[in-house]
Amino acid sequence: MESSAIFTLSNPSFSSFFPPKPSNKRAASHRPWRKKQRASQPTQLQCHKMYVPGFGEASPESKAANNLHSFFTYIAVKIVSAQLESYNPEAYEELMEFLGRHSLNDGDKFCASLMRESPRHKGLALRILEVRSAYCKNDFEWENLRRLAIKMVNESNIKIMRDYVQETSHVEN
Amino acid sequence: MESSAIFTLSNPSFSSFFPPKPSNKRAASHRPWRKKQRASQPTQLQCHKMYVPGFGEASPESKAANNLHSFFTYIAVKIVSAQLESYNPEAYEELMEFLGRHSLNDGDKFCASLMRESPRHKGLALRILEVRSAYCKNDFEWENLRRLAIKMVNESNIKIMRDYVQETSHVEN
Repeated sequence: MESSAIFTLSNPSFSSFFPPKPSNKRAASHRPWRKKQRASQPTQLQCHKMYVPGFGEASPESKAANNLHSFFTYIAVKIVSAQLESYNPEAYEELMEFLGRHSLNDGDKFCASLMRESPRHKGLALRILEVRSAYCKNDFEWENLRRLAIKMVNESNIKIMRDYVQETSHVEN
Repeated sequence: MESSAIFTLSNPSFSSFFPPKPSNKRAASHRPWRKKQRASQPTQLQCHKMYVPGFGEASPESKAANNLHSFFTYIAVKIVSAQLESYNPEAYEELMEFLGRHSLNDGDKFCASLMRESPRHKGLALRILEVRSAYCKNDFEWENLRRLAIKMVNESNIKIMRDYVQETSHVEN
C-alpha cells in the first residue's frame, strides 16, 4: 500500500518512554492504584516489587500507556485510510494530502489540526477519534501484547547469553 | 538522581512502532494466534475486528511488544543502577561510565556490549537481563497499562472535541 509511505514519521520521539530528567524519587508504594489492583494477590508479592527510580509522579505503566496512545492514533489513521481507499477515494486523497503536510508523531495535535482544516476534514478527524477508541477497547489484544513482550524478553536474554558463550568458547579453541 | 541524566538516549527511534514501508496486506485472519486466543469469545466479535493494513507478517501487538521490550531494558538498567548506588558505589560508577559511552536505544545491543566489556561488567549485564525478565513477568502491571491507555484515549478524545467546540463557539460570539 503506497499510502503508508506518505505517513510522515520522520522524527519520532521516544521521549515519553525515556524521561530526560526525572527529579522525583517515588517508591512503588506511592502509586495509589497499586494496592487496589493487587488486592486479590498475596501481600508478599507487593512488597517484593523492585524499586524503579526516576518516574516522578508518573509510573512506568503510564509512560508505556502514553506511547501506546500515540500508537493507537497511528493505527486508527491506517484503519480509516484503508477503509476510505476502497469506497471514498476523494476523502482518501484528502487524508493522504493532509498526512503529507502534518506529522503523526503527536497524534492528538494531528487530530486537532485535522478537525480545523475543513468541515470534511472534521468528519475524518471525528472518525479517527472514534476508531482509536474502539480499537484500543475492543480490537487490540492486550493479553497477546503481554505474552509477546515476555516471550521477546526471554528469547533475547537467551540469545545474548548464547552468543556470548559461543563467542568466548570460539576464542579458546 | 543525577545518574539518569547520563543515560544516553539521544536519538531514540520509534521505527518499530511505525514501519516505514509495509509491503504486505494481511487481514486479521492471517494471524494464527488470533483464532486460538479468542476461542472462548463469541465468533461475532472476531469478524467485527477492523482491518489494520501495513503490518506485514507482524501484528500491531508485536510492534507494541517490541517497543515495550526496549522499555523494559531501560527500566532494568534504572533498577540495577538504583540498587548499586546504595550499596556498591564502584559498580555503580562503572555502569554509569558505560552508560555515558553506549546508547540504550537498542537494549539488546547495549547488554551484549556490556557483557563483553570486562568480567565485572559481565556480571552487571547478566543482572540487567535477569531484572528485565523478572520485571516484565512479575512487576509490570499489565492490567494497569490497559486501563491507563484506554483512559488516556477517552480523555484525549473528549479534550480534542471540547477544545474544538469552545474555539468555534468563541468565534461566533
